Amino acid sequence: MSAQTRRLRLGMVGGGDGAFIGAVHRMAARLDDRFEWVAGALSRDPARADSSARALFIHPGRSYHDWQVMARAEAMRDDGIDAVVIATPNHLHIPIASAFIDHGIDVICEKPLARTYAQAHALAATVRASDRIFAVTYPYSAYPMVREARRLVAAGAIGEVRVVQVEYAQEWLTDLSQSPQATWRDDPDQAGPAGALGDIGSHALHLVEFVSGLVLNEVCADLASLVSGRRLDDQVQALLRFTNGARGGLWACQVAPGQENGLRLRLFGSKGALAFDQQQPEALLFTETGQATRIIKRAAGEHARQRDALLRLPAGHPEGYLEAFAQLYCDYAELWLARQTLRPAAYAATLLPDFDTGLRGLAAIEAMLRSHALGGQWVKLGH
Amino acid sequence: MSAQTRRLRLGMVGGGDGAFIGAVHRMAARLDDRFEWVAGALSRDPARADSSARALFIHPGRSYHDWQVMARAEAMRDDGIDAVVIATPNHLHIPIASAFIDHGIDVICEKPLARTYAQAHALAATVRASDRIFAVTYPYSAYPMVREARRLVAAGAIGEVRVVQVEYAQEWLTDLSQSPQATWRDDPDQAGPAGALGDIGSHALHLVEFVSGLVLNEVCADLASLVSGRRLDDQVQALLRFTNGARGGLWACQVAPGQENGLRLRLFGSKGALAFDQQQPEALLFTETGQATRIIKRAAGEHARQRDALLRLPAGHPEGYLEAFAQLYCDYAELWLARQTLRPAAYAATLLPDFDTGLRGLAAIEAMLRSHALGGQWVKLGH
Amino acid sequence: MSAQTRRLRLGMVGGGDGAFIGAVHRMAARLDDRFEWVAGALSRDPARADSSARALFIHPGRSYHDWQVMARAEAMRDDGIDAVVIATPNHLHIPIASAFIDHGIDVICEKPLARTYAQAHALAATVRASDRIFAVTYPYSAYPMVREARRLVAAGAIGEVRVVQVEYAQEWLTDLSQSPQATWRDDPDQAGPAGALGDIGSHALHLVEFVSGLVLNEVCADLASLVSGRRLDDQVQALLRFTNGARGGLWACQVAPGQENGLRLRLFGSKGALAFDQQQPEALLFTETGQATRIIKRAAGEHARQRDALLRLPAGHPEGYLEAFAQLYCDYAELWLARQTLRPAAYAATLLPDFDTGLRGLAAIEAMLRSHALGGQWVKLGH
Amino acid sequence: MSAQTRRLRLGMVGGGDGAFIGAVHRMAARLDDRFEWVAGALSRDPARADSSARALFIHPGRSYHDWQVMARAEAMRDDGIDAVVIATPNHLHIPIASAFIDHGIDVICEKPLARTYAQAHALAATVRASDRIFAVTYPYSAYPMVREARRLVAAGAIGEVRVVQVEYAQEWLTDLSQSPQATWRDDPDQAGPAGALGDIGSHALHLVEFVSGLVLNEVCADLASLVSGRRLDDQVQALLRFTNGARGGLWACQVAPGQENGLRLRLFGSKGALAFDQQQPEALLFTETGQATRIIKRAAGEHARQRDALLRLPAGHPEGYLEAFAQLYCDYAELWLARQTLRPAAYAATLLPDFDTGLRGLAAIEAMLRSHALGGQWVKLGH
Repeated sequence: MSAQTRRLRLGMVGGGDGAFIGAVHRMAARLDDRFEWVAGALSRDPARADSSARALFIHPGRSYHDWQVMARAEAMRDDGIDAVVIATPNHLHIPIASAFIDHGIDVICEKPLARTYAQAHALAATVRASDRIFAVTYPYSAYPMVREARRLVAAGAIGEVRVVQVEYAQEWLTDLSQSPQATWRDDPDQAGPAGALGDIGSHALHLVEFVSGLVLNEVCADLASLVSGRRLDDQVQALLRFTNGARGGLWACQVAPGQENGLRLRLFGSKGALAFDQQQPEALLFTETGQATRIIKRAAGEHARQRDALLRLPAGHPEGYLEAFAQLYCDYAELWLARQTLRPAAYAATLLPDFDTGLRGLAAIEAMLRSHALGGQWVKLGH
Repeated sequence: MSAQTRRLRLGMVGGGDGAFIGAVHRMAARLDDRFEWVAGALSRDPARADSSARALFIHPGRSYHDWQVMARAEAMRDDGIDAVVIATPNHLHIPIASAFIDHGIDVICEKPLARTYAQAHALAATVRASDRIFAVTYPYSAYPMVREARRLVAAGAIGEVRVVQVEYAQEWLTDLSQSPQATWRDDPDQAGPAGALGDIGSHALHLVEFVSGLVLNEVCADLASLVSGRRLDDQVQALLRFTNGARGGLWACQVAPGQENGLRLRLFGSKGALAFDQQQPEALLFTETGQATRIIKRAAGEHARQRDALLRLPAGHPEGYLEAFAQLYCDYAELWLARQTLRPAAYAATLLPDFDTGLRGLAAIEAMLRSHALGGQWVKLGH
Repeated sequence: MSAQTRRLRLGMVGGGDGAFIGAVHRMAARLDDRFEWVAGALSRDPARADSSARALFIHPGRSYHDWQVMARAEAMRDDGIDAVVIATPNHLHIPIASAFIDHGIDVICEKPLARTYAQAHALAATVRASDRIFAVTYPYSAYPMVREARRLVAAGAIGEVRVVQVEYAQEWLTDLSQSPQATWRDDPDQAGPAGALGDIGSHALHLVEFVSGLVLNEVCADLASLVSGRRLDDQVQALLRFTNGARGGLWACQVAPGQENGLRLRLFGSKGALAFDQQQPEALLFTETGQATRIIKRAAGEHARQRDALLRLPAGHPEGYLEAFAQLYCDYAELWLARQTLRPAAYAATLLPDFDTGLRGLAAIEAMLRSHALGGQWVKLGH
Repeated sequence: MSAQTRRLRLGMVGGGDGAFIGAVHRMAARLDDRFEWVAGALSRDPARADSSARALFIHPGRSYHDWQVMARAEAMRDDGIDAVVIATPNHLHIPIASAFIDHGIDVICEKPLARTYAQAHALAATVRASDRIFAVTYPYSAYPMVREARRLVAAGAIGEVRVVQVEYAQEWLTDLSQSPQATWRDDPDQAGPAGALGDIGSHALHLVEFVSGLVLNEVCADLASLVSGRRLDDQVQALLRFTNGARGGLWACQVAPGQENGLRLRLFGSKGALAFDQQQPEALLFTETGQATRIIKRAAGEHARQRDALLRLPAGHPEGYLEAFAQLYCDYAELWLARQTLRPAAYAATLLPDFDTGLRGLAAIEAMLRSHALGGQWVKLGH
């Protein structure tokens, strides 16, 4: 870890009182003491914005009621924010990101990157031409054991990957819900045309390519809204084909009783296999064909030294979701330092998901929507 | 259990020395002491047939070298076999079954029922018109906890079933194998046009309908031979749609390192969920939405009384695959007794898979083959 | 497996209708088709003895009402039994065994070997001087993974054993029970002076020495009867010291809700550790210090070849308690063959628990009773 | 959660660069944004103290080289620390605590509370007479599922507790270690007379009484140093008796390969049982006699509402050790607020372990040491 002489300054758009993911970002960024939260446009409702800011000990003068004002004002301060965190419904991600990038402020954006591929694509040239950091928060890819899985695959530990199974199942929408989060996520104007597919399928798709190193080539999908009165999909089943000939399956579902947050990835190769379960994130199952399965642990065993950079707690002291999320903030801080100190190599090595990662996720989602609309034909990822 | 005044007499075709499934049938039938093995045409090789018979303490005069001779000879004996067990490669199931049925002998046949749907269908009218018992051995459906799952679904414990996930993954064909079993299973003339789909997909498909009570309506499938030199599929991925609108996914794979015999079924309904893993057959996970998941055990807990008929061992004394297989033999013995004592009600209540069950399995397999051949279109189960 | 030209003939004393362990012996002996059950004195109640025999298809002429008559009669037949299986309450084991040994018939006896150490010791010289096989049925030591654990320890895989943890917990006596089994087991005249300690502690103690190769040297124990109205102990906690300086703990309890048949053994050595759970008998956890824990499976992985002799089913087809129990019968058959063919080496290699194993178990039990009676002092195994 | 108008101010003694537990305290206190770290005497080595402070963005003027100076200086500042966190070797806990209490500063102290019972007892009257908060950090008792277990026991869910099994096993001292932590922990002058017993046995003993509500009455213990060259115990086995007649066992071991941080607690009562495994802290197993075991989860199921106060992340987003540790800091903040606002009821309801909890832990440890020294006699907790 490079030396950091001050805490980096963060602001947030969205994420006021009662929002789930905004609070997660704040806890995650605090964990390693490399950041402080100093500004926010935390709600469209001015009173709620201010009360949320007060609870976070943010100075009243930096509690904004409008994110455009915030971008301008923070850009003009000597102690302005280094990065904005975007935690709003999907349709606002791109307009907000665009405004902060224009004012020279880094962006840390929730997934999916945009309401549609087209909306995100319109900003791509600007982002690529800029030297601003643009991160998309896929925290599951930051679990130490997920990164270890990626390392093992890249090192050839399971041979050529032949089969990929990924699933992401949740219970929380089994019945028609009136919660604020459930409401906007089922509104195509805010969420986009994909429901469960956009909300959780996006994580699953990212994880597949991140760990396997494979490139998804074509998909054949079946979407359904299994709860009466729901507008967007709550169940997705898809066949996957990768450019190397590997096959696979994806299941994303938010009407699965008993599944709290069941994100599971399994890879089978010509020489072995790997399995990861997000709800047991301290372990990675690794099998070489014909050998006993090994339970690789975060901070123990022959693989531990490789993972030293990610160690906060010793073996057997469970780390979880917040530590993975915090890793994304560490990754951002490292990139920030690398830019300050002109070390481009750090950019090549980073595992922080970026704008193009987010764009590719939207391409996969739209290919699935197209396949379903065509009655189950195979559709190539067009973009 | 009805009183049985003598052991029922069994003969076997196929299943000589070194065969896996023949030995399983013999152990299973012995377990509850309701059967004796008295005849066999155990191999096409006469010497191997006789040595296999000798090892089973079968009288030399009832070790046949030809199953047609065996059918005729056993039918003429006063102490002839009550049933023949067919444990040959798939293409011989129907000709052998036909011969024994013609001689008035019950049939217990390995799955899949035939090499093709058409081959089996040609015998359907004969079987239906006969009063001979025709069982197809799907042992996984005979696990106590699978039958308990079926009972719970039928009782409405999970509401209307919305999503079905089934998978059957094995490691044993990860590399190109020269074992005798691997060889005939990869020969379309003996195995039929389906590889992993016919061998293990058949079990998965049966389990889905057996437990869920749903009727599979249409499928969209992708098959692959992922090991160079293999003729038939070793990887199958399919989308499922049921007549009630439920959706699902099926994965069958024999190139999955670390997966010994990974048959898993999960059902998600409007009120709850069930999960069964064949490698942990003593437990069934049952969740009612919003409640703690319960680990229902074979011989304990509030559901145990329902399962009394199936109890051989008390709680915590693990039962396994042989006990499930033995249940099919108990089911057969009960049907045999019911026929003797003219109790047709027992026929309606039996859970023993029959000829039509086997035929329906072939219809599902062929719909998947057709969907794949058509490049991934949805295909309805035609028959 | 040596060639066996006929099925060995078994008779049973005790184990009539409704008895648990008698039925287990019968299923286990049938599994591999090396035995037939031809005689019995199955109950002290003549009518029940005969109806039990009838259900087992035993010839009425060999259904005895008195075990002394049975011993004499069977010894005089050309086709008399090769071995008697003793499945009565504990206090009758030794008298019955003595009678059959005297008539030249092998003995397969339930554990604990006797009501007291003294009772068993009185027969020791006779047994040792005889060439009759005397087996004591500790089935848990016959699980393939338990024997693999023993092999690994002997091969030095975990270094010198330093710590042993064993526990055997059950739920079934949480409330005061009126079941026939619970009744005699709580009667000192029939069961002996130890309750849970004799019934299940005996298994745990045998497993410890069988797997670890250590010799238990002294114990410090605390017994309790935690349910009002119970006469014998239902909870045992003990400290263990072994001759090599290793330490350990034993817990045996029959008032543990949720524990069906929870026998678990863990060994920790200078180089690694092993863990076995009887309720998951297909797996053995093996850790070398500083390495990932490996899940060794019965029929898979690098250790499988060592275990070939014990394979009935391929990987992933669960075996359980009956297969372990059946292994004891295979072990007996192998000894029987070795005696016939004058191969003393087979005697040295056998893992079948014998009379002296049973006697040592009684010594350990009595040391614990003494330690408890002395208010928790350390007591050496006297015998 | 009561409103807090500023972050509480913390200082630390000990816990400089490279220390494990100091960093844990800092992360835990930051998580919920109710604290800031503003002062420290982080090392006896002045250079290391200052560099550690700099890395924590602590103002150089508040990086002390002497904790007595720190206590005095902080007490005199308007913005002085609200509490000191003591993270030194055991023998310094009491002198440091005494100094800060004397200066009116609250104390948050690592366990065990002192090197010996006598050392702690000497401060007891002062602490009790003071209105300063004195917390001892037993973080395992702050896991949501541990607190839920306590609530269930208190509500009678498992009836009267009859048997308690607790174990705490670790691998890290399997070989003789030269790490700084291992070194002071094996030095009686710094650690006290107990090794593994003091380090991890202390946690286990606290957990037992915290959850069960039972009072430990007498113990019978066997300690050992199983690694050559070690001075203090690395293996402890003990028999437990509680005032209500319940029995139990304790095992603490630091030479257990494969055991990362294996703290497990099981309670068995007249009506049911509970089981908690620190390495799977999101789940609590709850069985009512004769019913299916239920997997109670932190943020799901029928018990969730009871635990709302402790929720940071929704169901299935794993929380771990840091969140439990952070709960102790929340508990402290709540007590601080209660004192400010004169609400004594909050004191009665708090679950934060206090000075007397720590003292009782030392009494239990010393009873075990005495029992061992007496050759395994039962010893009552004297104090």
